[in-house]
Amino acid sequence: MHNLEAVFGKWGTPAHSADPGAAAWEYLELNLGAGQPRPAVAVADIPLSDSRLSHEARLALSHEIGAAHVDAGRTARLRHSAGSSLTDLVHQRDGNLSRTPDAVLRPASHDEVLAILRVCREYGIAVVPFGGGTSVVGGVTAEAGVHDCVVAVALDRIADLLDIDRVSLTATVQPGMTGPTLERLLAARGLMWGHLPQSWERATIGGYVATRSAGQASTGYGRSNELVESVVLATPRGTVRLGRAPSSAAGPDLRELFIGSEGVLGIITSVTLRVRPQPNYSRYEGLMFPDYASGVAAFRALAQADLTGTVMRLSDRTETRSTLAMSGPQGRAGQALNKYLGLRGVADGCLGILAWEGFSPSATKARRRAAWVALRAHGAVPLGARVGASWRKHRFDGPYLRDVLLDAGYIAETLETAGDWSTLTQLHDAVRDALVTSLATAEHEPLVLSHVSHVYGPGASLYFTVVARAETDRAAQWAVGKNAACDAIMANGGTITHHHAIGTDHRPWMEQEVGEVGQDVLQAVKDLVDPTGILNPGKLLPASSMMELPV
Amino acid sequence: MHNLEAVFGKWGTPAHSADPGAAAWEYLELNLGAGQPRPAVAVADIPLSDSRLSHEARLALSHEIGAAHVDAGRTARLRHSAGSSLTDLVHQRDGNLSRTPDAVLRPASHDEVLAILRVCREYGIAVVPFGGGTSVVGGVTAEAGVHDCVVAVALDRIADLLDIDRVSLTATVQPGMTGPTLERLLAARGLMWGHLPQSWERATIGGYVATRSAGQASTGYGRSNELVESVVLATPRGTVRLGRAPSSAAGPDLRELFIGSEGVLGIITSVTLRVRPQPNYSRYEGLMFPDYASGVAAFRALAQADLTGTVMRLSDRTETRSTLAMSGPQGRAGQALNKYLGLRGVADGCLGILAWEGFSPSATKARRRAAWVALRAHGAVPLGARVGASWRKHRFDGPYLRDVLLDAGYIAETLETAGDWSTLTQLHDAVRDALVTSLATAEHEPLVLSHVSHVYGPGASLYFTVVARAETDRAAQWAVGKNAACDAIMANGGTITHHHAIGTDHRPWMEQEVGEVGQDVLQAVKDLVDPTGILNPGKLLPASSMMELPV
Repeated sequence: MHNLEAVFGKWGTPAHSADPGAAAWEYLELNLGAGQPRPAVAVADIPLSDSRLSHEARLALSHEIGAAHVDAGRTARLRHSAGSSLTDLVHQRDGNLSRTPDAVLRPASHDEVLAILRVCREYGIAVVPFGGGTSVVGGVTAEAGVHDCVVAVALDRIADLLDIDRVSLTATVQPGMTGPTLERLLAARGLMWGHLPQSWERATIGGYVATRSAGQASTGYGRSNELVESVVLATPRGTVRLGRAPSSAAGPDLRELFIGSEGVLGIITSVTLRVRPQPNYSRYEGLMFPDYASGVAAFRALAQADLTGTVMRLSDRTETRSTLAMSGPQGRAGQALNKYLGLRGVADGCLGILAWEGFSPSATKARRRAAWVALRAHGAVPLGARVGASWRKHRFDGPYLRDVLLDAGYIAETLETAGDWSTLTQLHDAVRDALVTSLATAEHEPLVLSHVSHVYGPGASLYFTVVARAETDRAAQWAVGKNAACDAIMANGGTITHHHAIGTDHRPWMEQEVGEVGQDVLQAVKDLVDPTGILNPGKLLPASSMMELPV
Repeated sequence: MHNLEAVFGKWGTPAHSADPGAAAWEYLELNLGAGQPRPAVAVADIPLSDSRLSHEARLALSHEIGAAHVDAGRTARLRHSAGSSLTDLVHQRDGNLSRTPDAVLRPASHDEVLAILRVCREYGIAVVPFGGGTSVVGGVTAEAGVHDCVVAVALDRIADLLDIDRVSLTATVQPGMTGPTLERLLAARGLMWGHLPQSWERATIGGYVATRSAGQASTGYGRSNELVESVVLATPRGTVRLGRAPSSAAGPDLRELFIGSEGVLGIITSVTLRVRPQPNYSRYEGLMFPDYASGVAAFRALAQADLTGTVMRLSDRTETRSTLAMSGPQGRAGQALNKYLGLRGVADGCLGILAWEGFSPSATKARRRAAWVALRAHGAVPLGARVGASWRKHRFDGPYLRDVLLDAGYIAETLETAGDWSTLTQLHDAVRDALVTSLATAEHEPLVLSHVSHVYGPGASLYFTVVARAETDRAAQWAVGKNAACDAIMANGGTITHHHAIGTDHRPWMEQEVGEVGQDVLQAVKDLVDPTGILNPGKLLPASSMMELPV
């Protein structure tokens, strides 16, 4: 494990403990059976084929960005082979990296990215843009497509804050900057961005924008795409600059065509983001609903009355039970909590987390008070600020657990969707059933936890976490569950992804999502800006006729 | 004039008086000189070339939608020749309709629209989708492009409410429905849409969505494109359906490529809109700032503190003066108002209009109170709810005045842009100067009135109204002013249009707006879905190579 960490990067902050604690281990063993420890292979044992980057191409690339920034070394190639899906982790741990980049390039500017694309087009080299490497959908897998060589373009040398407009409250940022760095720079000026996905500690701004990511506070502060005023990309056809004003009716919003394009239409080289003043009021709180239907109805009421919180999260019954069992108060404190919940009529209920943040304390408090009228009408019982603070403290913990669980003989993965309120519980039940049924063994059902994670006027998103006892072929095991869940999503009116993007893994459902003409439109735009198909092959778009042709 | 009205449709509701009143006429004569009355030609005198629709094509179209709905009559052809820009009105009034459709088709369903596109593609007939005919940018001009025949597709028979989802609060609507009809149907269920552009009395839902329009309450309720959950279009390549959920990360947001496509990528045949409950609290109010800079600073403070009103409108000094002089209280009441404003330090100030609407009265009131703390800090003086009510009563009056002013020997037109706060007053001054300078004569400067009409975190939109004494060639006169204003917009960081769309008139600035690659992307999508270029030629896209080729 230590070796793998050294190469692939230990998740998050070094001091963070990844041990979920005794109660969690006990709960997992009780529900899933005891896992068989599965240590990862030593990095030295991971087979790696020779780099296929030709001497000529290497010279040409070195000429453009400097030889020191064209790295065909083992460590760099392993590190940039893929993202962080369960399947990616399993392949790493099994030493089964069938796809690795032939080199890792580290350009320092927009012009260097343009130069890389020019050289790669000339030499027929596929290019995978690589930020934090946190894709959970195969978005940065080192696929060569029809080409016989592939490079990763690491963006960690294009990672500066270029400008802050203190009047318009915008920040122009390069793609390789991470959220913590951006927030630190903004906080020094009394500002914030507020985009907080669970990958926050490692993911980059370019990755957020390339995948239209949503974060834990997106109900309050907006999805990443809504926070982009303008964007600049390097493409094989040249530079694309989109977004002249806060809003426009100059034809279709072409920003929204390049935002979310997952590296297949260009490499984002700078983004002008909307930022905001730090809040003057902030309250995180927990609450308990008697059941899931009440919670969903209450969240809908808030969304449709413009009384949403900054964070709105509602766990289903299984997630609530698991959360309380694995991390809730133990012993006497736990008994007291259970007694309180029982007395208030919400024993075995559904846990909610709300945050209220705002620049104006009086307006934010009034909003919260009005929201609580609706929440109480739906049976919500307040659990207070301590529960909110505890959630906030642990909000980025999830990813730390995955390697620990894999070590211990379990698999854990997440997936997500969104749907309309009128069919949301049906969507929830269908996806849950698909996961439970497809991953059940004779002895145990998997743990399938779910929460509403973002709300909108017409509906909400659903986030699912699955933990199961590992079988021999963990990638194949998970593929069965993932396929069943995705089919259930599409059959029940959901979108194939609310904030994880398409990548490699969701491509089979893309035609159902956007239709045949929609796919053809994307391919037509791709053919225009990237006529030889070097940009991030195998992602987002269906396997095109070009990809099936012999080179 | 009466004849023209009978054909082109009198603007708005029949009972509405279009006379601006004695004070307004006096003000115009004082500032612009006396106009020379310019009656419109009689409709009978408008020359109209023979329809070029072939017998075979007419039979084929009649077969698909019924002969009664293929109308090559004089009245229908004149009525569907163009939109409602000043230039359009002048051409109508001069009897100079060089472009008229060869027939007007009235399909009744999505399938009939598909069938029309199939026949028109086969016979090489251009197709102009036509809703309310309120485009002010040449968006529905009957251009044939490279084809030798053009039909208008009137959408007034595809104008039903198809479904209301009372749980998700969405309404599925056909494109030909107008705003007043939709709001009436929604109000009967306690709901509203809330999209209120000045064209509201005639414009259609399809037109709103095809142009990404914004309305007077869009600061509170969102632009039309933000209120679309899903959209269905008929294209020559087949049906396009986009939007499966309230929000998605399934690649680029292709909805935003077809929304705002101005009829060049397809004809919208249904839209699922986000609707909302009727507000339980509504307050419209007026206020006065000591000067424009204070007003802009205050509006910025509200936008960046999440304390925006439902409507936020700030007139510059000239618009304020003109509004008060033309429609404000006269005589003693006027003197008393002026005395009050002087005592409060806002004589010759800038007028603001704010609306506060919300489902929760307590939260909405708290928001307004918090906003007023910021407003007062910037010197705002309240003028009370009567001023707000007066603005609300007259909010749709503008378009009624245009024919009246043209009759009286003046020209009147509007244009708009948006920009960042840091350069907004510079943008305002530059556009204003461009209009004043380009339209000034030896005797008089034009009246150039402007207001901030929508606010966002990073900036706001600016709306300009121009009134000048008519010269002999009114279209040429206005073209000089419009060109100067558009160049000033682009030179000062604005977008070429915040909510009027591109149409024919803004095409020369489109390359500056989205860049060469952006234009090429639009053309590539166009070539895919409309390979023979029949859809709305001459709009949005640059004159393409295809259009320059001989047929």
